[in-house]
Amino acid sequence: MSAGADVEGFRTLSTDLDDGVLTVTLDRPDRLNAFTVEMADELVTLFTGVNTRDEVRAVVVTGAGRAFCAGMELASEGNVFGLDESQRPTLSDMDDLDDPRILRGVRDTGGRVVLAIFDCRKPVIAAINGPAVGIGATMTLAMDIRLASEKARIGFVFGKLGIVPEAASTWFLPRIVGMARALEWVYSAEVLSAEEAGEGGLVSRVVPAASLLEEAQDLARRISRNRSPVAVALTRQMMYRNSALPHPREAHRVDSLAMFYTSTADGKEGVEAFREKREPRFTGSAHTGMPPFYPWWDDE
Amino acid sequence: MSAGADVEGFRTLSTDLDDGVLTVTLDRPDRLNAFTVEMADELVTLFTGVNTRDEVRAVVVTGAGRAFCAGMELASEGNVFGLDESQRPTLSDMDDLDDPRILRGVRDTGGRVVLAIFDCRKPVIAAINGPAVGIGATMTLAMDIRLASEKARIGFVFGKLGIVPEAASTWFLPRIVGMARALEWVYSAEVLSAEEAGEGGLVSRVVPAASLLEEAQDLARRISRNRSPVAVALTRQMMYRNSALPHPREAHRVDSLAMFYTSTADGKEGVEAFREKREPRFTGSAHTGMPPFYPWWDDE
Amino acid sequence: MSAGADVEGFRTLSTDLDDGVLTVTLDRPDRLNAFTVEMADELVTLFTGVNTRDEVRAVVVTGAGRAFCAGMELASEGNVFGLDESQRPTLSDMDDLDDPRILRGVRDTGGRVVLAIFDCRKPVIAAINGPAVGIGATMTLAMDIRLASEKARIGFVFGKLGIVPEAASTWFLPRIVGMARALEWVYSAEVLSAEEAGEGGLVSRVVPAASLLEEAQDLARRISRNRSPVAVALTRQMMYRNSALPHPREAHRVDSLAMFYTSTADGKEGVEAFREKREPRFTGSAHTGMPPFYPWWDDE
Repeated sequence: MSAGADVEGFRTLSTDLDDGVLTVTLDRPDRLNAFTVEMADELVTLFTGVNTRDEVRAVVVTGAGRAFCAGMELASEGNVFGLDESQRPTLSDMDDLDDPRILRGVRDTGGRVVLAIFDCRKPVIAAINGPAVGIGATMTLAMDIRLASEKARIGFVFGKLGIVPEAASTWFLPRIVGMARALEWVYSAEVLSAEEAGEGGLVSRVVPAASLLEEAQDLARRISRNRSPVAVALTRQMMYRNSALPHPREAHRVDSLAMFYTSTADGKEGVEAFREKREPRFTGSAHTGMPPFYPWWDDE
Repeated sequence: MSAGADVEGFRTLSTDLDDGVLTVTLDRPDRLNAFTVEMADELVTLFTGVNTRDEVRAVVVTGAGRAFCAGMELASEGNVFGLDESQRPTLSDMDDLDDPRILRGVRDTGGRVVLAIFDCRKPVIAAINGPAVGIGATMTLAMDIRLASEKARIGFVFGKLGIVPEAASTWFLPRIVGMARALEWVYSAEVLSAEEAGEGGLVSRVVPAASLLEEAQDLARRISRNRSPVAVALTRQMMYRNSALPHPREAHRVDSLAMFYTSTADGKEGVEAFREKREPRFTGSAHTGMPPFYPWWDDE
Repeated sequence: MSAGADVEGFRTLSTDLDDGVLTVTLDRPDRLNAFTVEMADELVTLFTGVNTRDEVRAVVVTGAGRAFCAGMELASEGNVFGLDESQRPTLSDMDDLDDPRILRGVRDTGGRVVLAIFDCRKPVIAAINGPAVGIGATMTLAMDIRLASEKARIGFVFGKLGIVPEAASTWFLPRIVGMARALEWVYSAEVLSAEEAGEGGLVSRVVPAASLLEEAQDLARRISRNRSPVAVALTRQMMYRNSALPHPREAHRVDSLAMFYTSTADGKEGVEAFREKREPRFTGSAHTGMPPFYPWWDDE
């Protein structure tokens, strides 16, 4: 899997598209798939790119060899922050995240990846096959569903290194496991077994190592095949964004438009197929066919 | 139960008030209580109306016959959106939700119901007696507590129809079951058993079909009898609205006023009764006796 | 433990600092440690004070004798609100919470304590040794982790007294146990057993009464010893504040600065110690050594 460049030209990832499911393998097995700036750039490219690829209906992320991702490659760490220590960025410096000085300097590398995943129009499933530590753990929090092999070990280990959790993990983790467990896990900085991660609700289920990838791909197919790519893309963004709004009325505004547009598009076929007790044939594209109100947010 | 018009004049609902608990039955059993625009209008009328009825202390919602609610009545679906497909509403069109064009047009019907439930001053309990699918599932998310019979089946099935989840369900569901489970359930679009819904925290408990309604009514009585209607109404709104604020300090402002007003009203009797080891006799009204700062929000 | 004034001069609390862990005992055992305005003032002083005490690395809160805290001291209740009933404060009156009229008048006493805990730079653990009722229950929600002895009883009993839950508990409780359970517990106003609190996720674990305090202190030590006080303080605030933001991008801005500053400070030693397989020796101070962007919020 790790024999040189991927068909898409990636050096730290390998990819495989089968039946609508793009499997992305973090592919530096001799380094336990440790995360580098190059890997971050490639993941951003990949997750941005799948939005325009109609043939990709869902994404599965796993690791090559025995690890999922052993965290930040410490050897590359010197490169992470382009700024000199004498420079003291402030929060207002962070307003323009696209400023090259910020982008290559003080911007958290894992966060760049996670925001690309956040904006993705396809469901993303983590298949955690082994140790997932540091950014290896936090990057999975922005993925929608996590499956773990019994060999998975998940550690929010930042505290042991004198640093903070990153990759917007303090935004995602309490939403997934609740505030108390999130605090205890991050404070303890201990490595969780697959079973503990399952009991805490971090992973949906723990499966035998031999069948992990297949189960993740099956799940990916089950939630994307015979689905409207437009409705799926809207649903994903509604779930993350509507739930963070202060009032359900704001969600209702988005819902109303999303329901209007999907009902008058793929939804027609959906209802017809339901009535005729057959599989629907949806034709919408999450690339060219999103409704005119999408995106309804103005991030920045 | 479904013999013509209800005493309150409803055609799709029947209601029964007993000992402070208003039981509302979705009452189109020959159609598995499928949701129609008429039912939506009647539910909005009902949930708005209970706010002015001091004799109603809590609400229980269930379904007539073997279903809770089988989802949107597909036969009526043509009526749902008054707008022509050539019209392309945008988010700014949704600013005035009371605009008749929006109200009868592009506004999600289930969302109108859910927002009326959200504004309700009484606790609302869902007694899910059978299949609850689509809007039949999502409408229960705005109810405070869900009990299910072992025959309940709950399905966020929108994905199979090429449409999106509605009724502000993307706001409510992650708050109830966490983000990961919410995403997996909505993506999968599969129908959950009562047991699965219980394990996931969607329903509080699963009870035998024969005792479901009685248990729901008992619970409703237990949480509203010998309670201050004013304190209950404040508590309900504080829970939903305070928790969505960005900072506990804003909750503290509301808390302080709510504690001040209840302490100088029904709270006096409450403390006295506690000292005298007797049941309190609260006299406040959630209709005419809400404190002057209520509502403290400006929804719009 | 309750023999007169504490070494720090507290009258309602006793404190003990051992190996970086400050154990705070609510110390009115003859009154089941009932909460008074004096206790509130002392807790605010204590939690504000620990931010400047480098020797305190974590805080454990427990109760003297057989209770944790039996709630508001009803005898002192007359003192809680300085305002006359004829005065009718509104939400805009609450804008300046430091106005002495508000501070001594209508401000919820428990909320003052909870906001001081919220701003604390050290992890806070509740060791719930017995009954924790009313403010005795809600004050623990702002503590990061709750351990309970098998004798703990936790009650959000406000409803029975005709008053509302306070101390920003409607902000914290749904974050810890989810919205449905939060509503059911608060509506029911019943006293939960330690086991129920554990099953619901309110307490991390239930331990024998005899070992509760030791387990809480061990946990406190485990999450603070060999940790960077700066990184711990940042992490605590990131978890609570980032997670309440509407978008992970805003968390990413804070993350990026926090990672930049910790990586160029204690993080260097952390990585070096990790490489050398030894315990790190962090030198940062959460008092004098916080990065210049801290605090990044403007609470008002």
